[in-house]
Amino acid sequence: MRYELHYWPDIQGRGEFIRLALEDAGADYVDVARRPRGAATLERLLRSRSVARAPFAAPFLRAGKQVIGQTANILLFLGPRLRLAPKRETDRLWVHQLQLTIADWLGEAHDTHHPVAGSLHYEQQKHEAKRRAANFIGERLPKFLDYFETVLRRNPGGYLLGKRVCYADLSLFQMVEGLRYAFPRAMARLERGYPRVMALHDRAALRPRLATYLASSRRIPFNQQGIFRRYPELDPV
Amino acid sequence: MRYELHYWPDIQGRGEFIRLALEDAGADYVDVARRPRGAATLERLLRSRSVARAPFAAPFLRAGKQVIGQTANILLFLGPRLRLAPKRETDRLWVHQLQLTIADWLGEAHDTHHPVAGSLHYEQQKHEAKRRAANFIGERLPKFLDYFETVLRRNPGGYLLGKRVCYADLSLFQMVEGLRYAFPRAMARLERGYPRVMALHDRAALRPRLATYLASSRRIPFNQQGIFRRYPELDPV
Repeated sequence: MRYELHYWPDIQGRGEFIRLALEDAGADYVDVARRPRGAATLERLLRSRSVARAPFAAPFLRAGKQVIGQTANILLFLGPRLRLAPKRETDRLWVHQLQLTIADWLGEAHDTHHPVAGSLHYEQQKHEAKRRAANFIGERLPKFLDYFETVLRRNPGGYLLGKRVCYADLSLFQMVEGLRYAFPRAMARLERGYPRVMALHDRAALRPRLATYLASSRRIPFNQQGIFRRYPELDPV
Repeated sequence: MRYELHYWPDIQGRGEFIRLALEDAGADYVDVARRPRGAATLERLLRSRSVARAPFAAPFLRAGKQVIGQTANILLFLGPRLRLAPKRETDRLWVHQLQLTIADWLGEAHDTHHPVAGSLHYEQQKHEAKRRAANFIGERLPKFLDYFETVLRRNPGGYLLGKRVCYADLSLFQMVEGLRYAFPRAMARLERGYPRVMALHDRAALRPRLATYLASSRRIPFNQQGIFRRYPELDPV
């Protein structure tokens, strides 16, 4: 099965959580919008009147005739197929629950620079962004890190499920990457308190296929159009 | 199977999306935190050190030994068991995708009154709330309504899947209820543009078990502590 990933070609964004799973699994996939005219295909599919079950937004995945939207839902579908989720329903739901918690965390990280509206520029909501980012760094970031540190402590082995990797581990790796990009000062202060989360990040980065991907041109660098953005005034000393 | 729902006892909140599914299905369940000392049980479970797979937040559901968190994940689990989701994987993923889109919409509705921090009072972020609510009413609310109206038009039959009800229909009913409570003026202007969404709302409200529930004391009235809140200044004429 060759999967087709449809996501905006110039940012990591939400699509990156899917890319990491596909890459770590060595899956056969095409990142459609990064090919010539691929972004037009993405927009056409989003607006098509012929798709009975069109997604609300990108990313979405085409797998044969199926079109699947919502990042966590795509990973729910891919998980067992890529051997990045256990087979038992109980375990699959647990991994999905962790993924949805990461999705909430990611949404809050996004809203630090866009607390008023995604359709306005950062400069138009800078005042609000400062307040929201201060709350994110002071309260929410430690709360989410605490949670994942606790999960790792209670399920020893190095990954969220213990010894076996799952797609939520790759997503947690990406959260640490993104948070280090966006909030280098806050992360430098906080990281020592969460040794298991940071060890998971480092362990994931050494996975052979993931390391190859991260060093390749397929990995889009973080930038100021993505979900994680670095505005020094949102990450004070 | 007697299900145990754990959610804050004084608000509809995210728990209501679970309650609606359990009630519509006539399921055997206990709303634990609404019983004496129930809220203490909820908090104890959230903080317990003995739970290897503790949820990040309420609501969570106990089903035998399983503890399941994240609203959409709970509905993913309950769907087939309550006959509120189809059996085919493709269909179940589609219903879940709709539910996750509703979850995004709900998060944005919440952030209209708390754009800076959930831990601050509304009065401490009223200025930011006005800007965010204006964007929500002007852009996001029509965008989400458009999307669900389109899904209903492309899948005729009255419910999101066509003729057969699923848990996402009950959640869409709840979105309309909540939005009418929080933004009565905006909804009065917008509703005529979305006849299928409004017809689905009315159809759901007439479902016998749901109607019984809605008229009972088990249905907590909307109030100013929940996700949907009515601040007239956020819903101008």
